[in-house]
Amino acid sequence: MREVAARRVLAVFCLAMYCLASPVAWAAVDAPIAIYNATIIDGTGRQPLPNGVVVISGGRVQAVGPVTDIKLPKGTVKIDATGEYVIPGLMDANVHLLIDIEAENLIRYEGRYDDLIIEAAQLALKHGVTTVFDTWGPREPLVRVRKRINSGEVVGARIFLAGNIIGLGGPFSSDFLPPTGLSQVLVDRINHEWEQDVGADLLWKTSEEVRQRVHDYLAGGELDFVKYASSGHRNEQFIVFSPEAQRAIVEEGHAKGLRVLGHSTSVESLRLEIEAGVDVMQHCDITGTEPIPPATLKVIVDRRIACAAMFHTQKHVDWEMTHSGSGDSARKSEVWRQNDRALLAAGAVVLRTTDSGVWGADTASNPIFLPLKNIPDRSNQLATAEQLWMQSAQELGMAPMDMLLAASRNIAAAYGKLDEIGTLEVGKRADLVILNADPLGDYRHYQDIRAVIKDGRIVNTDHLPATTILSGTKPTEP
Amino acid sequence: MREVAARRVLAVFCLAMYCLASPVAWAAVDAPIAIYNATIIDGTGRQPLPNGVVVISGGRVQAVGPVTDIKLPKGTVKIDATGEYVIPGLMDANVHLLIDIEAENLIRYEGRYDDLIIEAAQLALKHGVTTVFDTWGPREPLVRVRKRINSGEVVGARIFLAGNIIGLGGPFSSDFLPPTGLSQVLVDRINHEWEQDVGADLLWKTSEEVRQRVHDYLAGGELDFVKYASSGHRNEQFIVFSPEAQRAIVEEGHAKGLRVLGHSTSVESLRLEIEAGVDVMQHCDITGTEPIPPATLKVIVDRRIACAAMFHTQKHVDWEMTHSGSGDSARKSEVWRQNDRALLAAGAVVLRTTDSGVWGADTASNPIFLPLKNIPDRSNQLATAEQLWMQSAQELGMAPMDMLLAASRNIAAAYGKLDEIGTLEVGKRADLVILNADPLGDYRHYQDIRAVIKDGRIVNTDHLPATTILSGTKPTEP
Amino acid sequence: MREVAARRVLAVFCLAMYCLASPVAWAAVDAPIAIYNATIIDGTGRQPLPNGVVVISGGRVQAVGPVTDIKLPKGTVKIDATGEYVIPGLMDANVHLLIDIEAENLIRYEGRYDDLIIEAAQLALKHGVTTVFDTWGPREPLVRVRKRINSGEVVGARIFLAGNIIGLGGPFSSDFLPPTGLSQVLVDRINHEWEQDVGADLLWKTSEEVRQRVHDYLAGGELDFVKYASSGHRNEQFIVFSPEAQRAIVEEGHAKGLRVLGHSTSVESLRLEIEAGVDVMQHCDITGTEPIPPATLKVIVDRRIACAAMFHTQKHVDWEMTHSGSGDSARKSEVWRQNDRALLAAGAVVLRTTDSGVWGADTASNPIFLPLKNIPDRSNQLATAEQLWMQSAQELGMAPMDMLLAASRNIAAAYGKLDEIGTLEVGKRADLVILNADPLGDYRHYQDIRAVIKDGRIVNTDHLPATTILSGTKPTEP
Amino acid sequence: MREVAARRVLAVFCLAMYCLASPVAWAAVDAPIAIYNATIIDGTGRQPLPNGVVVISGGRVQAVGPVTDIKLPKGTVKIDATGEYVIPGLMDANVHLLIDIEAENLIRYEGRYDDLIIEAAQLALKHGVTTVFDTWGPREPLVRVRKRINSGEVVGARIFLAGNIIGLGGPFSSDFLPPTGLSQVLVDRINHEWEQDVGADLLWKTSEEVRQRVHDYLAGGELDFVKYASSGHRNEQFIVFSPEAQRAIVEEGHAKGLRVLGHSTSVESLRLEIEAGVDVMQHCDITGTEPIPPATLKVIVDRRIACAAMFHTQKHVDWEMTHSGSGDSARKSEVWRQNDRALLAAGAVVLRTTDSGVWGADTASNPIFLPLKNIPDRSNQLATAEQLWMQSAQELGMAPMDMLLAASRNIAAAYGKLDEIGTLEVGKRADLVILNADPLGDYRHYQDIRAVIKDGRIVNTDHLPATTILSGTKPTEP
Repeated sequence: MREVAARRVLAVFCLAMYCLASPVAWAAVDAPIAIYNATIIDGTGRQPLPNGVVVISGGRVQAVGPVTDIKLPKGTVKIDATGEYVIPGLMDANVHLLIDIEAENLIRYEGRYDDLIIEAAQLALKHGVTTVFDTWGPREPLVRVRKRINSGEVVGARIFLAGNIIGLGGPFSSDFLPPTGLSQVLVDRINHEWEQDVGADLLWKTSEEVRQRVHDYLAGGELDFVKYASSGHRNEQFIVFSPEAQRAIVEEGHAKGLRVLGHSTSVESLRLEIEAGVDVMQHCDITGTEPIPPATLKVIVDRRIACAAMFHTQKHVDWEMTHSGSGDSARKSEVWRQNDRALLAAGAVVLRTTDSGVWGADTASNPIFLPLKNIPDRSNQLATAEQLWMQSAQELGMAPMDMLLAASRNIAAAYGKLDEIGTLEVGKRADLVILNADPLGDYRHYQDIRAVIKDGRIVNTDHLPATTILSGTKPTEP
Repeated sequence: MREVAARRVLAVFCLAMYCLASPVAWAAVDAPIAIYNATIIDGTGRQPLPNGVVVISGGRVQAVGPVTDIKLPKGTVKIDATGEYVIPGLMDANVHLLIDIEAENLIRYEGRYDDLIIEAAQLALKHGVTTVFDTWGPREPLVRVRKRINSGEVVGARIFLAGNIIGLGGPFSSDFLPPTGLSQVLVDRINHEWEQDVGADLLWKTSEEVRQRVHDYLAGGELDFVKYASSGHRNEQFIVFSPEAQRAIVEEGHAKGLRVLGHSTSVESLRLEIEAGVDVMQHCDITGTEPIPPATLKVIVDRRIACAAMFHTQKHVDWEMTHSGSGDSARKSEVWRQNDRALLAAGAVVLRTTDSGVWGADTASNPIFLPLKNIPDRSNQLATAEQLWMQSAQELGMAPMDMLLAASRNIAAAYGKLDEIGTLEVGKRADLVILNADPLGDYRHYQDIRAVIKDGRIVNTDHLPATTILSGTKPTEP
Repeated sequence: MREVAARRVLAVFCLAMYCLASPVAWAAVDAPIAIYNATIIDGTGRQPLPNGVVVISGGRVQAVGPVTDIKLPKGTVKIDATGEYVIPGLMDANVHLLIDIEAENLIRYEGRYDDLIIEAAQLALKHGVTTVFDTWGPREPLVRVRKRINSGEVVGARIFLAGNIIGLGGPFSSDFLPPTGLSQVLVDRINHEWEQDVGADLLWKTSEEVRQRVHDYLAGGELDFVKYASSGHRNEQFIVFSPEAQRAIVEEGHAKGLRVLGHSTSVESLRLEIEAGVDVMQHCDITGTEPIPPATLKVIVDRRIACAAMFHTQKHVDWEMTHSGSGDSARKSEVWRQNDRALLAAGAVVLRTTDSGVWGADTASNPIFLPLKNIPDRSNQLATAEQLWMQSAQELGMAPMDMLLAASRNIAAAYGKLDEIGTLEVGKRADLVILNADPLGDYRHYQDIRAVIKDGRIVNTDHLPATTILSGTKPTEP
Repeated sequence: MREVAARRVLAVFCLAMYCLASPVAWAAVDAPIAIYNATIIDGTGRQPLPNGVVVISGGRVQAVGPVTDIKLPKGTVKIDATGEYVIPGLMDANVHLLIDIEAENLIRYEGRYDDLIIEAAQLALKHGVTTVFDTWGPREPLVRVRKRINSGEVVGARIFLAGNIIGLGGPFSSDFLPPTGLSQVLVDRINHEWEQDVGADLLWKTSEEVRQRVHDYLAGGELDFVKYASSGHRNEQFIVFSPEAQRAIVEEGHAKGLRVLGHSTSVESLRLEIEAGVDVMQHCDITGTEPIPPATLKVIVDRRIACAAMFHTQKHVDWEMTHSGSGDSARKSEVWRQNDRALLAAGAVVLRTTDSGVWGADTASNPIFLPLKNIPDRSNQLATAEQLWMQSAQELGMAPMDMLLAASRNIAAAYGKLDEIGTLEVGKRADLVILNADPLGDYRHYQDIRAVIKDGRIVNTDHLPATTILSGTKPTEP
């Protein structure tokens, strides 16, 4: 009964605000908004506040507290959220808004990567992910889209971007999907969109040369954070940069006031990036055939270095352990799981990370992805992947509140954005999600979304993505 | 002195006709045109007529003869061609207007194949090739472009088309350039543009089923001639269709009043297509490691079946004989040359055929073409390839007049179009080329073009191609 | 009770004959042998004869009939076969005694192919297959082994051999398993062992040249029958030889008094080989995506051309129909099954054919066979494959007596060897199997073998194979 | 005249000693030998001594000096070397006695690797190379052959061996020539011959685990020195081991009293191995696209770390610079040359190193080596490669005496063997070469060999290799 009422109010509100008609897919509201009677989980780690109210104005949180304590400004638009839950806008510590790097996409949409990125940013937002951290992508299109979203011209999740993974080649390089049958001119041009002069040729350089290149790369000020490869990508057991070069990269990033991420996939590359001083360890739980050594784990926990962990469901892990071709693969899956348990048991700072993006409908028929076909609970599709992460965390016994923090506050903090986003606190950007059911009760409730609000505006999620390109008809994935 | 005068007249004429300004790249002239004082080589095989005149009106040849014999209609625009040579519009018995089937082109330009075809048809026309026979291409785009050219909406060489080579797969099939890394959905869709339900799956069928499929394929009436595979394309020593199936295809083509071409690459597949009754044998001079047997040669000559011969320069052949990896390849080159000499010696009906089209600038950097890199005088680039054919013919000792006929009358006759085109005779379409020097003196003069006239209209060759896509910046080729 | 007695008698007999000690793995018996009190199924199609006796002497059957009718010669060794069944020696119409053509085998055992062939011939014999028809193998080693077996020097199944499949390349050619990383010198040398100058280069030749080559190939008189390719092997939808060339091959074979087999995999290649006059059609039931046309089926039945049919169990067929990657593959499996039913319904002459041989223990770990890994009831392993064929036939509803004939008399007749082998009739070679249970009751009983007798000698099956090379430790297969 | 006399004396001597008849391919001489009237270049760097004498007894040098100063023991066999030159036995700092790791060799000769190694050791000795350092090979066969040579049972160059390059996989791994079409069982077995549990899986380990594995690997005491990978082999720009792991390896080697070699191919991996404390840097002159930085060069020179340098002739380098496919390859060749010049100019300790071994006759026809086909002065063939190195050194302007030291004393010193070999000094092993012409005059004279003496015995080089397997008929190479 209450729910029906609530929906009606929202519907009235939306009609008033022209939600449905809005070409920019959301409602601009100048008046303050108050979401009241909700249970508020503010993302600080504090207990949920029943019968709370959040007041939003000027794109920011103006007040949070018990309904009884907060006085609403005049002219406030009131949204009755009785029986509902308000949480901070969700985040993903590791997406690739342009992830579908199949040759046919990169060729067909060359010159239109902005559109693909917008589509992905809108899909994220539609599912309550108000902020994404793009950790590998084409710098210039991402910068353009970030600007258009921040200016309000285009609706979409807030984007923070790293551009290239320093030391790795572009999508058509041997580090990713080396193609056949394409001209070198094309291959080089597409790769350059990602590499931006900090690609694999850096591996030949001295640490001083690496430092200079990274310095130049960061000079433009376009990047929100820095990511580099400590391990190889396809040659995942190799070390990419010497300790000296790694330190040079980290120092250059820090000198620009940026957080620095390392990409590692072995115990030694993990250790090296920690010693180099990274702030976030991408997939710190992937260490090949050897689990994270106790000494390394201790440093991770003591220094509270953020672990972007690639959780998987037990069903997925079981499959990998039993079906993967070789003993080595099974061993790696086992170690991976072991690391996840160890990180949680030790109280490491964990971030939700999914490596996801939008995959087109044709992908499923691409033979290069055939080996992935029967793997259960495997997804790099935005929204799906994030929910699988939550399911996995729940299966791993993570506390519900920790799960929420891993998908919001911890990420903001790790990337140095906690002043602005990550919790529902006065003065911060008003990014929040209203859920119809308690997210601390079951991870599934994270997708029982009543409304998404970003920068204080209610997102017209029904209209997202505004233009469907890859996600169009029948979104699939490898 | 005379030449200078002639050029001046043409310039004046062109200005009057808005040649240079014409957006459709040619001049529409309603008044009769007379090209006078030229040496006329009418393409019938008759001796050149000095001081001749050709009168054009209504798109057709109204008169041909000695200046002294022909009386010009009133209001005739006169073009002084003193010292120049008038020949019929040239032809190519075997082009692929969309030949650059590299994955990146077929993906990037999907939906725009018409534009690529127009560009190629305009490049052909620019070089005096007023009619091309497209023997393998995407049917629907070709049909659309043919219609637009024939209606006068678009300028370009006159197109006759076969669509698919019956029995072969599309560009992304194992018969041509099987790609890697593309989705099956895409591969199937692109292949279908060519295959049109008469692709490689016909090899599984009975001859009656093949007959039915070909019948259906021809039912639409869109095709100008029929082509089928007697040999495989990549499996060039295999036989594609049984004799019964071959006969069924030929009969279906003939029943629709169409000429039928066979694609063969061995002595047996050549013999089978002859016995099936083909009208034109594509690259009849390619028979692998065995030369055309005397008995087969006799039938070819006796029945005057048209031989579309792939001549190459001696330099090219020498290279192949000495540089090709294996003894087999050298042997094939030797046999090829031997066939060419034998066909000429026996007086076979020879057609100029080049397998050419337009290759884009990036092609040269495509590793799949690396093995072709150093081969001299190798070209599938329109215009270049046709001149190389002429050079080769001259090197082979072909009579100059026979070379001209091979590039005009013989082709028209072989394809059943001699009523309308192929020679400069009264009543035929006014397709002709005015050359500055005697083509019977040296093959190079075929490219010393003063003017190209198609359907009685002077082509503004400077404006062709109107839009440059592949041929744009720096046309190259594999 | 009776069984125990019978075994005791045999044991006594064997001891007397030095079975177990025999280095040549069988017992030489000069005295006549009488197997009495058995049910005799003589392989002529007649009803089983209870309480029968078979008398063997001089390597041949001297008498067959009711115990009560036959008078035993003096000195006859008597074998009590009460409750047991005597059938003709079994056959396989299509084996490859050297089938494991993985690079590592052909390289490691180069110069020792004879040993591999002997091992396979002994494994066949051990399982009651007294005669095999090797339809593709290295001619010289096969000829040598045949000679050694026929001379009695080596024990093994009787071998009839074709050498190469005319028109196909050797094991390292693109028709079979083209290797990488091997020197061309090696590749050519190994291929030549199979090709013997009637390989794939014949496809370039005229039918007269093909005839001459085949003539020369047969001139040595070493071959027992002739096999040629009507379809390609990997390019299975292509036609290898023109009808004229096919007729030339058949005529040359027949001129030498040899039966001729065709290899076909499509409806048209099947039809062509029939029209060329083949005596046996290898895997006539494999016709790709189109079932055998009624007209073709009628000819097969009317002319009683032998169908070497590749039956599979229903479980296998079901798997293929549901698990094979593409629609085409499923369609082919369906057509295959449909053909098998049609051939049986029409009363075609069917031969048991298995394409089997001996695969080594390491094969299972060869990645090239990975796609075959999970296919049920798939076997090219000698003995296993033959039993699967029997199981399949029973599932298809074939009459028990017809199954026996398909594995004995029909094969002998098809290959023109019925005068000597194929049934238990007076004067024929004494090749027979004593079974402990009724083979007409269930196909499994074919492997409930009490004794195998070849050329009148009791085979010491426990000692076979005498030397284990591939079948050694843990015989596997792809 | 003198030369003729000398030859005659040797011939007499040899006859007396049964050189030609000796089945062990050399002459056992118990009496002291004196080589007199020779110019002696003792390999210490001292000026050549004219009219000198070397006295050998008990396998060691008993005296070296002017003829006039040395008193010969009684019963000394005298060899007149008037006009000839005596130098220390030559060395190669980097060979692979079993280098021809083509699949066909490793399969065919499995179980006979000892024979291949003996053949190579004999070929080296035949050409004056009395000592080789095998830096990557199958440990157990090498250990066996070393033992047989040292015991005198087999003649051959003195072998010092490292076994595997720690961190790299075996010949069939992705680090070398990953095969297709072979069973995994075989691949694993062959790889294990090289890897010996210190293969590529070490890359997953912590430095402590690496240390333990190396400790275990060295525990058997079979190895003469240690080699590990600082760079990858095919992934040559990657770093294999962290600095900590590299140090652990070096420490373990040193703890066993062994010299340690690093394999590096980039400026950073070179620096890392230097910092880890390696004694010899394999191909220190290969650093990809960046030349050795000045700071690194300074350390190399100051610490006198041995540079095993891969010199090439100018013709070779020119070809690489102009013909290699990409700009990167040309750049690498240029840098390589630049490094060689810099090392020489700076006075680095240079060792002759060739990466050579014996390649079989069929190799030249192996398609995997096709890209190498036209490269001039490219050789990994024993003897040829060593002479090319000398030619290259001469072209680079290296002083003749330094060239000799690079091929003798420097190598012995770098590997810690100078007490026993490397120079012609009293008490050392009597390994020496008698040349017909002055090696300091021209590098070609190193192959103008009159006699090779190892351990005081005259080698019967005409009989080497005793058994020809790979080098048999027409030795070629990739």
